[in-house]
Amino acid sequence: MTPDRIRTLLEQVRDGSLSTEKAMETLRAFPFEDLGFAQLDHHRALRKGFPEVIFCESKTVEQVVAIADRIVSHGADLLATRVTAAQGEALCAAIPQARYNPTARTVALRQSNQPPATRGEILVVCAGTSDLPVAEEALETAKAMGHPVSLLADVGGMEGALASVVGGMVGVPVIAVPTSVGYGAHFGGLAALLGMLNSCATGVTVVNIDNGFGAAAAACIINRA
Amino acid sequence: MTPDRIRTLLEQVRDGSLSTEKAMETLRAFPFEDLGFAQLDHHRALRKGFPEVIFCESKTVEQVVAIADRIVSHGADLLATRVTAAQGEALCAAIPQARYNPTARTVALRQSNQPPATRGEILVVCAGTSDLPVAEEALETAKAMGHPVSLLADVGGMEGALASVVGGMVGVPVIAVPTSVGYGAHFGGLAALLGMLNSCATGVTVVNIDNGFGAAAAACIINRA
Amino acid sequence: MTPDRIRTLLEQVRDGSLSTEKAMETLRAFPFEDLGFAQLDHHRALRKGFPEVIFCESKTVEQVVAIADRIVSHGADLLATRVTAAQGEALCAAIPQARYNPTARTVALRQSNQPPATRGEILVVCAGTSDLPVAEEALETAKAMGHPVSLLADVGGMEGALASVVGGMVGVPVIAVPTSVGYGAHFGGLAALLGMLNSCATGVTVVNIDNGFGAAAAACIINRA
Amino acid sequence: MTPDRIRTLLEQVRDGSLSTEKAMETLRAFPFEDLGFAQLDHHRALRKGFPEVIFCESKTVEQVVAIADRIVSHGADLLATRVTAAQGEALCAAIPQARYNPTARTVALRQSNQPPATRGEILVVCAGTSDLPVAEEALETAKAMGHPVSLLADVGGMEGALASVVGGMVGVPVIAVPTSVGYGAHFGGLAALLGMLNSCATGVTVVNIDNGFGAAAAACIINRA
Amino acid sequence: MTPDRIRTLLEQVRDGSLSTEKAMETLRAFPFEDLGFAQLDHHRALRKGFPEVIFCESKTVEQVVAIADRIVSHGADLLATRVTAAQGEALCAAIPQARYNPTARTVALRQSNQPPATRGEILVVCAGTSDLPVAEEALETAKAMGHPVSLLADVGGMEGALASVVGGMVGVPVIAVPTSVGYGAHFGGLAALLGMLNSCATGVTVVNIDNGFGAAAAACIINRA
Amino acid sequence: MTPDRIRTLLEQVRDGSLSTEKAMETLRAFPFEDLGFAQLDHHRALRKGFPEVIFCESKTVEQVVAIADRIVSHGADLLATRVTAAQGEALCAAIPQARYNPTARTVALRQSNQPPATRGEILVVCAGTSDLPVAEEALETAKAMGHPVSLLADVGGMEGALASVVGGMVGVPVIAVPTSVGYGAHFGGLAALLGMLNSCATGVTVVNIDNGFGAAAAACIINRA
Amino acid sequence: MTPDRIRTLLEQVRDGSLSTEKAMETLRAFPFEDLGFAQLDHHRALRKGFPEVIFCESKTVEQVVAIADRIVSHGADLLATRVTAAQGEALCAAIPQARYNPTARTVALRQSNQPPATRGEILVVCAGTSDLPVAEEALETAKAMGHPVSLLADVGGMEGALASVVGGMVGVPVIAVPTSVGYGAHFGGLAALLGMLNSCATGVTVVNIDNGFGAAAAACIINRA
Amino acid sequence: MTPDRIRTLLEQVRDGSLSTEKAMETLRAFPFEDLGFAQLDHHRALRKGFPEVIFCESKTVEQVVAIADRIVSHGADLLATRVTAAQGEALCAAIPQARYNPTARTVALRQSNQPPATRGEILVVCAGTSDLPVAEEALETAKAMGHPVSLLADVGGMEGALASVVGGMVGVPVIAVPTSVGYGAHFGGLAALLGMLNSCATGVTVVNIDNGFGAAAAACIINRA
Repeated sequence: MTPDRIRTLLEQVRDGSLSTEKAMETLRAFPFEDLGFAQLDHHRALRKGFPEVIFCESKTVEQVVAIADRIVSHGADLLATRVTAAQGEALCAAIPQARYNPTARTVALRQSNQPPATRGEILVVCAGTSDLPVAEEALETAKAMGHPVSLLADVGGMEGALASVVGGMVGVPVIAVPTSVGYGAHFGGLAALLGMLNSCATGVTVVNIDNGFGAAAAACIINRA
Repeated sequence: MTPDRIRTLLEQVRDGSLSTEKAMETLRAFPFEDLGFAQLDHHRALRKGFPEVIFCESKTVEQVVAIADRIVSHGADLLATRVTAAQGEALCAAIPQARYNPTARTVALRQSNQPPATRGEILVVCAGTSDLPVAEEALETAKAMGHPVSLLADVGGMEGALASVVGGMVGVPVIAVPTSVGYGAHFGGLAALLGMLNSCATGVTVVNIDNGFGAAAAACIINRA
Repeated sequence: MTPDRIRTLLEQVRDGSLSTEKAMETLRAFPFEDLGFAQLDHHRALRKGFPEVIFCESKTVEQVVAIADRIVSHGADLLATRVTAAQGEALCAAIPQARYNPTARTVALRQSNQPPATRGEILVVCAGTSDLPVAEEALETAKAMGHPVSLLADVGGMEGALASVVGGMVGVPVIAVPTSVGYGAHFGGLAALLGMLNSCATGVTVVNIDNGFGAAAAACIINRA
Repeated sequence: MTPDRIRTLLEQVRDGSLSTEKAMETLRAFPFEDLGFAQLDHHRALRKGFPEVIFCESKTVEQVVAIADRIVSHGADLLATRVTAAQGEALCAAIPQARYNPTARTVALRQSNQPPATRGEILVVCAGTSDLPVAEEALETAKAMGHPVSLLADVGGMEGALASVVGGMVGVPVIAVPTSVGYGAHFGGLAALLGMLNSCATGVTVVNIDNGFGAAAAACIINRA
Repeated sequence: MTPDRIRTLLEQVRDGSLSTEKAMETLRAFPFEDLGFAQLDHHRALRKGFPEVIFCESKTVEQVVAIADRIVSHGADLLATRVTAAQGEALCAAIPQARYNPTARTVALRQSNQPPATRGEILVVCAGTSDLPVAEEALETAKAMGHPVSLLADVGGMEGALASVVGGMVGVPVIAVPTSVGYGAHFGGLAALLGMLNSCATGVTVVNIDNGFGAAAAACIINRA
Repeated sequence: MTPDRIRTLLEQVRDGSLSTEKAMETLRAFPFEDLGFAQLDHHRALRKGFPEVIFCESKTVEQVVAIADRIVSHGADLLATRVTAAQGEALCAAIPQARYNPTARTVALRQSNQPPATRGEILVVCAGTSDLPVAEEALETAKAMGHPVSLLADVGGMEGALASVVGGMVGVPVIAVPTSVGYGAHFGGLAALLGMLNSCATGVTVVNIDNGFGAAAAACIINRA
Repeated sequence: MTPDRIRTLLEQVRDGSLSTEKAMETLRAFPFEDLGFAQLDHHRALRKGFPEVIFCESKTVEQVVAIADRIVSHGADLLATRVTAAQGEALCAAIPQARYNPTARTVALRQSNQPPATRGEILVVCAGTSDLPVAEEALETAKAMGHPVSLLADVGGMEGALASVVGGMVGVPVIAVPTSVGYGAHFGGLAALLGMLNSCATGVTVVNIDNGFGAAAAACIINRA
Repeated sequence: MTPDRIRTLLEQVRDGSLSTEKAMETLRAFPFEDLGFAQLDHHRALRKGFPEVIFCESKTVEQVVAIADRIVSHGADLLATRVTAAQGEALCAAIPQARYNPTARTVALRQSNQPPATRGEILVVCAGTSDLPVAEEALETAKAMGHPVSLLADVGGMEGALASVVGGMVGVPVIAVPTSVGYGAHFGGLAALLGMLNSCATGVTVVNIDNGFGAAAAACIINRA
């Protein structure tokens, strides 16, 4: 384990068995199998008050349940995204207090006692019913992070232009999520993505197609008090 | 010349020197060098009351002036599009009564005595100054066709979403023209083109990027009484 | 509800409890949750004489039937597009007088007593049998809007060039619909779309790939007397 | 002018010459030439404490100077972006107190007496010298908005991966700006754009290629206290 | 029927009931519903000695069998391409003397008594087993047209480069067929298509991805004596 | 030099200093620097009666003149393509009897005494003046190969659909050349290329965008008696 | 058979029945059906110590088993890639000593007695569980080639940036494999592919999307002592 | 400076003023402005025996000369790539002993006394003269790194297929470099890139379009003894 190796190194420096220069040399030459350490560490700052997230798309039912069990038993908050029906049922059976939202394809459990300090409410705006799964994923993500959030569904068929119209109206940060539902020259969300990137409305930023989770996570980071 | 060949054929049928069946066989077997005939002919129906149009982009100054001279001397209306500065000056020198619009890159002369019967006024709506050349090309095209037209410039930076917004508001046909001015992921107008094709607003149709001429010509055909 | 809020505002202006300037300030500062109001309103002008349309692709059977029931019970005309077999059967069971066209994937019911005033007949032209579903969707859309329409099917394998050939021949507006049926470098209709956008035939405009509904709706708006 | 029309309408309601219902009908039926009003109005909320921005790319030197003069004479803050050398010189001649940054291609003048309340400092991070123009545009934009900002240039050749690496390390919002400088399969910034959209780092959002202005403007909206 | 209308027109010219000029005017003004006529006619020249071809991809089993029955009963040669298993079985049941090739996805029947005069043998060259369906379609097409043809399968894994290598070696026309089998950046045959279009080998021309039929048909037209 | 190495090997086999098996082993193990040999050889069969061709695009004036001099002094036929004005003038100065065609960007000299045996005349068909450079390059190529050829220019604005229309009419091989002239969604010839690849007309094959040389060379190979 | 033809030719040279010049002429004029010979031969040098590889994707269960049986009975090492479940089971039944890895979709059998001389260990680094199938295919490939290899799985969600980060850290060759798992603007691995091609890290080269086999094979060629 | 901060930290551990746990906490929480440190360090391992490289494309003449001066004065080896004529002349004036290769667009100076231990010679193979700049860049890069290298230019017009053909013949690592020279559907090297990625030849890896430097650098890392 890398943290152990670093601890050992520091202890050797402390007890004089390793010179400062030698320790620096070692730190610099860290072989890349130690990347994992840095990785975990970096996310720590970010994860304060955040749930542990399981992206379920490429995992078996067994893997998903095992990871979720470990998270919940540590008392951490849980958010599973891109949950299939089978995964959802297995998670609910294993963690009865968790809440499964089939439209959002999420399973969530919040165990934290108090909500984080926030600046205001997050609003998820959604043009039509076909975008609901992405909007609900965003909604569930913000809830799992303990932020106040509400959904304004079906404001009308304004599709890719919605971010521009909303962004031109409000004085708060807008995070646009193109969705993959459409047909013909929609090209799996590419048309909406390009439209949003070219929006002239100030304050609009964009995340990946269908990335309701990422949009809500970014919104929560912005919304922290 | 093909029209002559067809006339000869019909005269042979009339004077009995060619059987009906033989004439049919000949008409069917038209070699493809006669395509030009069909071509010219087909456009005739379309061109009633329309100016003769010169697309100048791949022509020399001399070619453009020669074609324009021939059109004007026949009393026809003239519209030259994609006119360079050099072409514009040469056309104005050769045809002093013609009007050169450098923003629209058009030279036009209307010699028809009376305007065509139309259903209403055509409105060219344009988001910002960068789209003016395309908007002015549309304006000049509609004028050259004798239709009432006006320009609503600079309605605000709504870019690719403009067609959706306008299309969602009005009960008349809307022809969307994506423009190539932009940067980054605008991809020379592709982003706007895709956005317009995916617009959910009923009644919106689309023409090629920067095709102000085509949009106005289609609008005039729609606007004929 | 927004209309209520506007009515209240106007009543306050009328009875003097709100100054004109204050009312203007309020109107300007409309929060965006009122978009829905504007949206509905905008479509009103457009929808005169038009059926209520349900795009079924991302809806459950239950949702589709519920929406259709509400439309029909209000005496409005109905058009459901992109109907699956299951949705079609459920709609026919719930609304026996509705007509289901499996090729067009539409369910329609026209309850209006008199047809709208139109300028002429709409003609749907279709190159081959593989384009029939899109052509039939256009046909059903025009019928649902009460416009006279007929179908000229299978004029020959002229594929993406059809719009150019027809557009070069006729003196009326032509709306081109690329279709997604093809293989290899057809790229789901992209080849046909690009070909149509680059057509030199005057008066041709284009809608999204497979958008038979949109083409017919635009044609009906053009065809209104 | 539309604001006048609305004021007149409200005055008619007030003095009883227009019924509430009639006024509502009129408000609903607003013809689209009034879009401009809405447009200006919407941006007002957004622009509080923001400079007036001139996007110079498709404007003549004369247009740019005229607009800048008008802005400055009203006491507003000025930011001109995508300024050419000729435009920059003309602006400096006309507004001597303005500051021209040729690398950022900006001209700016801040006339506001006190800076806005902010939450912290904005940090512009830039992989290499080739990205400096975009980074400087972001820097100047944040300065023009009165926000504290600093630049960390040339952190190393980590190119498209920089946003992922930074996003994985920090607990604050990260706005990624792909840049168009590169060669081969970089495709004018498309490679970097796609890489950033697919970043797994939580809290990363993306703006258009080379859009240093948009990124900084979004950062300032986020950074408002 | 259009041929009848043309015959009538010619007979009217012959008996003097229609003037030559009037007849010309009529021929010129042919409404576009007569496109079918031209269409059929054009293919006649081409089809001499060719089988009637049914592209089965977008047709029902019933449609395919009905068309095939009509062709065979007229004594014409038959070639059905893109045949599904169900279509193939139904065709074999209806036309027992027809030959079904499941790899090529073709059903063929040659009823002509004597082969066409040809210049030589056609050779189908195929890199690996994954390209066999396309190669066999080409093989069957050439056979159905009565041309001598043989298959050189599995010459090695030279993939998109095969056309260049063969084209650089032989002094006869080479028609390259990119195939859609591959993975990753093969993009459904696009990589092979682009490679073949950019081949520097003289005499190489290209057809659509997977278009074994088109390649063989072109080869047969070239190979006619 | 490789031919020398092979000759040496064969002489060693002949005089018994190398066994047959050893020689086979050597032939099999040919290091890749001998590719050039195979390369030159392969083209020999192809080049019978063909001119030596210089693709000038990436060569200096001096290189082009030197290569041309060497070709002409050997009595071979010469064809230089993609000739710049400077290259053309230098070639004409160095080889006064050569013919420079600035529209086609070719310089050619035919020194062969008798034309090759051919099957018929090649016809170059061209939609409009913007395609003339490519059409003329094809014309000059066929002439340089000694084949009878003529040009049918400006048959009408049928653009990408021309190959389909012509291909549907004639019973001879058609080679389609997409051209890069166009604007908007033409994407440098991509739209025309895709349209031609998807043409349903039998007997149409396609070459690279603007490849007039390749089309004519393929036509000549087909046209050989 | 070609090797026989070459042997005959060499024997004729040896016994004087064929002149050296004539033999050279024959070697030069090799018809292309002999490509197969060259092909097999070329791979010989490459295959020293390598397993025979079966790419199973477009093959039937019967074909795969037959090829594998032939390879194994010759004592050669076996590697089958892209193995389906059905193919895997059949291979295991036919060759019980073979090892089937369902995650890697490989079946392998190493019969060589001694491992090849290598320079070091190959390390397969993998960002997350979704990339495991590709990583395991690489692992199995290296094992089948007898090279020491280990897997560092799940180093963190660094996705397309992983190659850049690793490449910037280590002083050994890095072969990047983009994977097709992802969503939205990942476009089947295109985003990762472009990101890797644009990596500024020295020593990074790239193979096709999901091509774990190709990456490991290249690594083994590099790793040969 | 970061190295100083780390040294300070280690010294505090050593003299007991900082606990091991606290030091670990600090190392983990490294703010991202310290990335530069890691960055420089990582490259150290890689750069052993490598020249310092200046990518000149986005730098001024002054910047390039200043960086080069600093490198040379430290006794390091120098390689400048993508050098413009002006940059090349200025570098030669400032560092007279440096060698400028205008075709390769490189300036290089090798000051190391002894070449690195290598495994063999690197061979740069190039299809035609249009690819020479990229080939020469690779050649100069390998020379600057002290590796034996030679160039096999103009092996024939095999374009994108060259890597496949060479890769199928040799038993050593092959690094393919697509080049951007071409026209039509070559799309700036995309066609060649895709062709190389899809090559079936074992041992072929690919770098970015025109990246002669990257290919040679990777080759040198592979070629280290």
